Amino acid sequence: MRNAFHDELDSITTTLLQMSALVKIAITDATTGLLTADLAIAEKVIAADSVIDEIQHDLDARTINLMARQQPVASDLRTLVTSLRMSADLERMGDLANHVAKQARMRYPNSAVPAELIQIITSMSIVANKLIDKLAVVIEHRDTVRAQEIETDDDEMDKLHRELIAALLSDDWSYGVETAIDMTLLGRYYERFADHAVSIARRVYFLVTGEYLNY
Amino acid sequence: MRNAFHDELDSITTTLLQMSALVKIAITDATTGLLTADLAIAEKVIAADSVIDEIQHDLDARTINLMARQQPVASDLRTLVTSLRMSADLERMGDLANHVAKQARMRYPNSAVPAELIQIITSMSIVANKLIDKLAVVIEHRDTVRAQEIETDDDEMDKLHRELIAALLSDDWSYGVETAIDMTLLGRYYERFADHAVSIARRVYFLVTGEYLNY
Repeated sequence: MRNAFHDELDSITTTLLQMSALVKIAITDATTGLLTADLAIAEKVIAADSVIDEIQHDLDARTINLMARQQPVASDLRTLVTSLRMSADLERMGDLANHVAKQARMRYPNSAVPAELIQIITSMSIVANKLIDKLAVVIEHRDTVRAQEIETDDDEMDKLHRELIAALLSDDWSYGVETAIDMTLLGRYYERFADHAVSIARRVYFLVTGEYLNY
Repeated sequence: MRNAFHDELDSITTTLLQMSALVKIAITDATTGLLTADLAIAEKVIAADSVIDEIQHDLDARTINLMARQQPVASDLRTLVTSLRMSADLERMGDLANHVAKQARMRYPNSAVPAELIQIITSMSIVANKLIDKLAVVIEHRDTVRAQEIETDDDEMDKLHRELIAALLSDDWSYGVETAIDMTLLGRYYERFADHAVSIARRVYFLVTGEYLNY
């Protein structure tokens, strides 16, 4: 049975997908700005963050308004509450992309990332992209298989993060403390980005199955 | 007018206060464990984190259940949505205290913090305590003056965070990259802890006034 309420639910999902598309652009461009010391693209990411924030504000207002008007029960209410939480995670993922872009801007015209670590950061960005692509499918189709895959992809991100820290601690490290601090923070941003994707995947999994995923 | 619904709202507030009390213990003990290389107290914080997580799970279930049963409109609904968000912030503050404790455990029997930085970390912990004390007042009494003060206290935390990074970058830094990485992460944990307190303060401020606080 379709009705106006379910049309509004669909429109909320559409906005969440729009947020995830913007977050994907943000993390991709932020990584490009970081690895190529491209100030223009870093500035673009930084400016675009407020767009994601505004979409979240607007979406949350619509969601709460829908709760108030339609008085949904049980599963519809849970869907709306989950939507509020997903929008918060996506907004935070946008913030983390913004942090990566700011790191690129802070070190411009130099690159914040030494040549030896470009490969690891590139790999972290590839995992971040894979996560966000799957996240879009999870959000749109409530795909629990992809939700579970996101957990596995996050393990890959954690592995890359450990490799990054190991590189900073190796005897070969010759870039000093400042670059080590930069890389520690960058590693944390990508890792937290993945954590928020996992958080969304777990919320959708719980919504669909009523069970916690590896919690 | 008092009724069963408002009694349940009060009980939700009581649980949020209980969470904030546990978070205060967690960050205080985690800092003690960190600064005195006390493994037992660090382990206590790590074990207690699941208690905060369980309270949050239970509280959120109660909150959503109350939404479904009582079909609150307007301000009551907003209060419940804000409660869900506050519990998420408090849970995350518990995680950050847990991260501090894990850092203490990882370096045991050594201290993760060099003697020169004990003062800064102590100051960050004092600010964290001040924030959480005010947060309890904000949560209990919807005190908008204290909510605004929390913003100012957060500026103090940011200042300490900058001092910490400056110390790592000074020519006098003699502790190498590993300790710099530890301190970078620790600084980030305290800073994010304060950010979540600000987030709660802003939510309550908005709930009371309908206006955004420095957003």
